[in-house]
Amino acid sequence: MNGGKKLKVAGIAGSLRQGSFNRAALQAAIELQPPELDIEIVELGQLPLYNDDIRVEGYPPPVHAYREKIRASDGVLFATPEFNYSVSAPLKNAIDWGSRIPDPPYAGKPAAMISASVAPLGGVRAQYHLRHMCVSLNCFVMNTPQIYIGDAAKKFDSSLKLTDAALRAELAKFLAAFRDYILRLQR
Amino acid sequence: MNGGKKLKVAGIAGSLRQGSFNRAALQAAIELQPPELDIEIVELGQLPLYNDDIRVEGYPPPVHAYREKIRASDGVLFATPEFNYSVSAPLKNAIDWGSRIPDPPYAGKPAAMISASVAPLGGVRAQYHLRHMCVSLNCFVMNTPQIYIGDAAKKFDSSLKLTDAALRAELAKFLAAFRDYILRLQR
Amino acid sequence: MNGGKKLKVAGIAGSLRQGSFNRAALQAAIELQPPELDIEIVELGQLPLYNDDIRVEGYPPPVHAYREKIRASDGVLFATPEFNYSVSAPLKNAIDWGSRIPDPPYAGKPAAMISASVAPLGGVRAQYHLRHMCVSLNCFVMNTPQIYIGDAAKKFDSSLKLTDAALRAELAKFLAAFRDYILRLQR
Amino acid sequence: MNGGKKLKVAGIAGSLRQGSFNRAALQAAIELQPPELDIEIVELGQLPLYNDDIRVEGYPPPVHAYREKIRASDGVLFATPEFNYSVSAPLKNAIDWGSRIPDPPYAGKPAAMISASVAPLGGVRAQYHLRHMCVSLNCFVMNTPQIYIGDAAKKFDSSLKLTDAALRAELAKFLAAFRDYILRLQR
Repeated sequence: MNGGKKLKVAGIAGSLRQGSFNRAALQAAIELQPPELDIEIVELGQLPLYNDDIRVEGYPPPVHAYREKIRASDGVLFATPEFNYSVSAPLKNAIDWGSRIPDPPYAGKPAAMISASVAPLGGVRAQYHLRHMCVSLNCFVMNTPQIYIGDAAKKFDSSLKLTDAALRAELAKFLAAFRDYILRLQR
Repeated sequence: MNGGKKLKVAGIAGSLRQGSFNRAALQAAIELQPPELDIEIVELGQLPLYNDDIRVEGYPPPVHAYREKIRASDGVLFATPEFNYSVSAPLKNAIDWGSRIPDPPYAGKPAAMISASVAPLGGVRAQYHLRHMCVSLNCFVMNTPQIYIGDAAKKFDSSLKLTDAALRAELAKFLAAFRDYILRLQR
Repeated sequence: MNGGKKLKVAGIAGSLRQGSFNRAALQAAIELQPPELDIEIVELGQLPLYNDDIRVEGYPPPVHAYREKIRASDGVLFATPEFNYSVSAPLKNAIDWGSRIPDPPYAGKPAAMISASVAPLGGVRAQYHLRHMCVSLNCFVMNTPQIYIGDAAKKFDSSLKLTDAALRAELAKFLAAFRDYILRLQR
Repeated sequence: MNGGKKLKVAGIAGSLRQGSFNRAALQAAIELQPPELDIEIVELGQLPLYNDDIRVEGYPPPVHAYREKIRASDGVLFATPEFNYSVSAPLKNAIDWGSRIPDPPYAGKPAAMISASVAPLGGVRAQYHLRHMCVSLNCFVMNTPQIYIGDAAKKFDSSLKLTDAALRAELAKFLAAFRDYILRLQR
């Protein structure tokens, strides 16, 4: 398995607010990840709003750092809220900065996605827009299992710890499947 | 017709770069609009990256001003590039700031969309994500005619004036249809 | 109100099986409709699989009859299952037969959609594909309210009567909104 | 390479008409395929319109035969027209019959898609709905290259032979990429 090294996974949380359930879901993923994975959350809040005039002058340091973190990863785990039936603006912004040639850092990466929402549907519409974007990024998105965390406020406690037992088990299984998926694509 | 007043249309360009073909398409729309329309471009570059913690403290002045311009309009004309098969990050950001309750400013507005791209497909995938977002905004998007400006670099000159005669005619017709559509929904 | 005549609504159930929850949802809609509406279920099972060679020879009688029922309606109410994250094949088949020029019968009609599924998400992905198709049909789809009937097996009894009280109230409200929407577009 | 055996690819043409450009595109693919591929067109016209009551009584022989052809393949090549911004009804019908458990035949297959249309956009909206459906089928769809055959009537001759030289080269390259993609996933 990869020479004993852990698989580095870039965790991308689409929401910038402190109390984000999607960030909390990534924290839960870190807690529940199998020993072969090493999920690290990549911050998006410091990226400027995408402007191609900025890009042609050279990536600002936060954009450069972000792109290199994606590049150094063995896989990407997106956690996205659903805003207006799509991914959030900060996630779209990160995707747009991350897609530019030459050497687009997402290209060829295995990817998986989860979504959390206080509404019952759990962000399903956001995931299906994100899957389209991932074709453009040339990521290889895991088909199944899928996780939609609806009614999120009932599944995390006030310190944003994932407390729903069924969901904890489901997330652990999801992460094990993602590990297997990354390893399959690395062969 | 609306008591003789012009119909105010908020023009939303999804690209922030100076030489944007989508901004240029809105300029062409201003040039070609029927006398009943008054399209004004609304700037998006000054909006902060969406963060719900900012929202709960109160809209920053640029967000407030943006929302009020949308609210004061009789209709919205989106001009979006296609980035990663969806709308651009600045447009998604504007949509997310513009959708928040109470009093979401897009709700109930007639809307139309165009897209321009240097690639041949002209942004069609972005338009179909945007149509989903407009359901969430509760805009009423015109079904037809539709405009996809592919190979944009051949259709505007070096000063970003729309020079393609067929497209100029098509855009004028599109804007007349949008005028009729707004008036129909105002009855 | 329309000269006292009822508003004729074509009810389109995307599933052909006898025990379909989507057909049952349309039956519930008939039961719960406001007095101004007259929903009639249009059968789709007798339509041949779409083949353009058949079309050019002339619509077979079931296709012709189907198109005329849509044409005679004041609005369309779709009830679709979700198969493979989209509408069912019988519904897609009906849409394709119903879209052909000249005189496409769906053009300009107000439309609304519901979906039922034994799975928890209630068909949301099908609705968002269907909304795209309705742009092509040039239907005017109501934005809101929206109904996704998840866990359908718990909401209908063994005789397929809708028994969930909250959902009955929600459906009645949905149908009243659709009535208002049709009337608004008829002005 | 697979022990010297050819890779069997099921070619799925979404249009039933005799003069279909999508079927013609599959014929061109057969002509231009690399020596390692063996594309065979799977017929869809004999499948009944999907009805779950039929399924529970047992697959009719044409459905069974179709499912076994998919199962026996090493990969799937879809060629879809765009009808109402989505795949055609016959293709959706084939997908729905092909997705049913137990032992869904598409699960785990590498897949690629092309689309042909007499309109300029070449079926791009159909491909993006089809990509969603393929997540449900648990196919692994190649991200890139992509082929959209717009203005199809100019690219095939009257005997439906693909005559456009640039497109022939593009299709050959696409098929070589698909061969490599299948082999990668078989490791």
